[in-house]
Amino acid sequence: MSEIPNITFDLDAPGLSTGHLVVPKGADCEALSLPVFSLNKGEGPRLLITGGCHGNELEGPIVARRVIEWLPETQVCGRVIIVPEINPLAVQACTRNTPIDGKNLNRVYPGRADGSVTERIADAVSRLLLPMADTVFDLHSFGPTWDFPPAIITHPIADADLMAKTLKMAEACKLPVTLLWEYDAPGMFDTWVHSQGKLFICAEFGGGTVGAEALAIYEAGVRNALIALGFVEGKAERPTYRQKKTSQTLETLLSDELKSPASGIFEPRCSMLDEVKQGDLIGILHPMESLSAGSIDIRAPTTSVVCAIRSGAHVDANEELVYLARPLNL
Amino acid sequence: MSEIPNITFDLDAPGLSTGHLVVPKGADCEALSLPVFSLNKGEGPRLLITGGCHGNELEGPIVARRVIEWLPETQVCGRVIIVPEINPLAVQACTRNTPIDGKNLNRVYPGRADGSVTERIADAVSRLLLPMADTVFDLHSFGPTWDFPPAIITHPIADADLMAKTLKMAEACKLPVTLLWEYDAPGMFDTWVHSQGKLFICAEFGGGTVGAEALAIYEAGVRNALIALGFVEGKAERPTYRQKKTSQTLETLLSDELKSPASGIFEPRCSMLDEVKQGDLIGILHPMESLSAGSIDIRAPTTSVVCAIRSGAHVDANEELVYLARPLNL
Repeated sequence: MSEIPNITFDLDAPGLSTGHLVVPKGADCEALSLPVFSLNKGEGPRLLITGGCHGNELEGPIVARRVIEWLPETQVCGRVIIVPEINPLAVQACTRNTPIDGKNLNRVYPGRADGSVTERIADAVSRLLLPMADTVFDLHSFGPTWDFPPAIITHPIADADLMAKTLKMAEACKLPVTLLWEYDAPGMFDTWVHSQGKLFICAEFGGGTVGAEALAIYEAGVRNALIALGFVEGKAERPTYRQKKTSQTLETLLSDELKSPASGIFEPRCSMLDEVKQGDLIGILHPMESLSAGSIDIRAPTTSVVCAIRSGAHVDANEELVYLARPLNL
Repeated sequence: MSEIPNITFDLDAPGLSTGHLVVPKGADCEALSLPVFSLNKGEGPRLLITGGCHGNELEGPIVARRVIEWLPETQVCGRVIIVPEINPLAVQACTRNTPIDGKNLNRVYPGRADGSVTERIADAVSRLLLPMADTVFDLHSFGPTWDFPPAIITHPIADADLMAKTLKMAEACKLPVTLLWEYDAPGMFDTWVHSQGKLFICAEFGGGTVGAEALAIYEAGVRNALIALGFVEGKAERPTYRQKKTSQTLETLLSDELKSPASGIFEPRCSMLDEVKQGDLIGILHPMESLSAGSIDIRAPTTSVVCAIRSGAHVDANEELVYLARPLNL
């Protein structure tokens, strides 16, 4: 029989508490102890903030720790639970997936108590943390090989009311981009949270390294969400990004994904948030075998905004190179 | 008996030629064919440009290919040989070292004809390409996990005349930073080139992803070098970087390297090229086991400029986090 996950302290205790979420041991590894922060100021909204789902996206774990620094002095009501590193095995290894079982934590929800370690983490979160929250803010980033603007993203939600509430909350973060991204895969955390009728917002950031400027923008987005949800009093401030204080709401469809037509070296020829017209050069794919022929131009199929662009790198055939987008018309 | 490396075309032929440098097969892998570009406009200086020594530094291979596009119409004299990917195995794998033997190509010069594949590449370059050049321009970058400004770097050179010539050429590239970096390791390409009395300049760039803006700056630096060396006519243009057209010459000593005092999550609190005073906060190291105690402040030991700073990431104890620098006083 499987052991069951537990929390080492009373989440209902008033005020500030810290302790651990214990994910039971299994055949593949020993039990894990995930540090958990809880701040219970009584009646009001209930929020779960998670970071470090993918271990090579470090904005989340760092910003979660920064919020933990100032939240005790600013939270006025309700309950906030924060788990900076929901997948510590992946964070320690700096890998997207959990190294022990090779699984993507964001594809195994709601998890399995008798599964491999990634499934046991999802099970512990689903059973013990999710029931304590009405809203989940999952702190992701686009990963180190992409240029992607500071954004809140959401996937399309069948429930129109929840979709509208989610977009409204996403825009309240006042990040440069709010993105409705047509994407669906089994086992995602957001899908599971939506199935419980709860609100889910997700931050995505890009740009290779995790630097001080990006962290400040990310932190501002989380603070704005806490203000919009009513936990923190004050005025939401739109952060400055590339010398501008602007926001736009975009939509990316499945057909907006441009893939590599062959293997080779991808040379980006434009930057994220560039506006492109049909036929404009987005990048060039160079074969490595020859210098005299065979480079392939990657051109915009339609007028659009470059939402995400791969770093210059050697890519295989059929790898994603670019995500285009356009203003969302609801 | 070992096979010997060869070039599939006549490097002495006038005009433009392309072909391959063949690195012989060995016990560990088949022969490699590295694409080579040669442009021979007769009498004049002789330059070898190499990119892709480390396979996760793609600025070099891409910019080398861009130079190959315009050089035939602009080169007025002398000979330029360009090898965009000197280590194609590492480039294909997107790894710093060669995956087959785990070796760093920039630590095995002058190579060995009967060695493993990385040593055979170095041997082929040393034997067949280096004798054809008086100057080598090696196109590196600082790698995807660092923020580092567009720079030409050089290590200290015992020969004072060569040191002065190298710094002069480095500054002629007009990149934001020229860096004299106290560093020495056996088998580096620059040391071997210097031992032949030849000039060696090396570009280093950072910032996680390889994007269109960084590539344009990198290309401008190479063009400026070609102008300074006399291959191309025209005026050197200082590229714009972070809204400024400035250059500074800095020095980094061995003691300017700050390492992680423990394992944990590194949070950068300043950005590259920030000026810091003694005691200023550069970053914070957070233990992953607890949220309530144990974060370690990383502070500036002396007034300096932040020359390179690690991306926010999980780091092990004794990993490099920051390189400080100061204006070079010769």
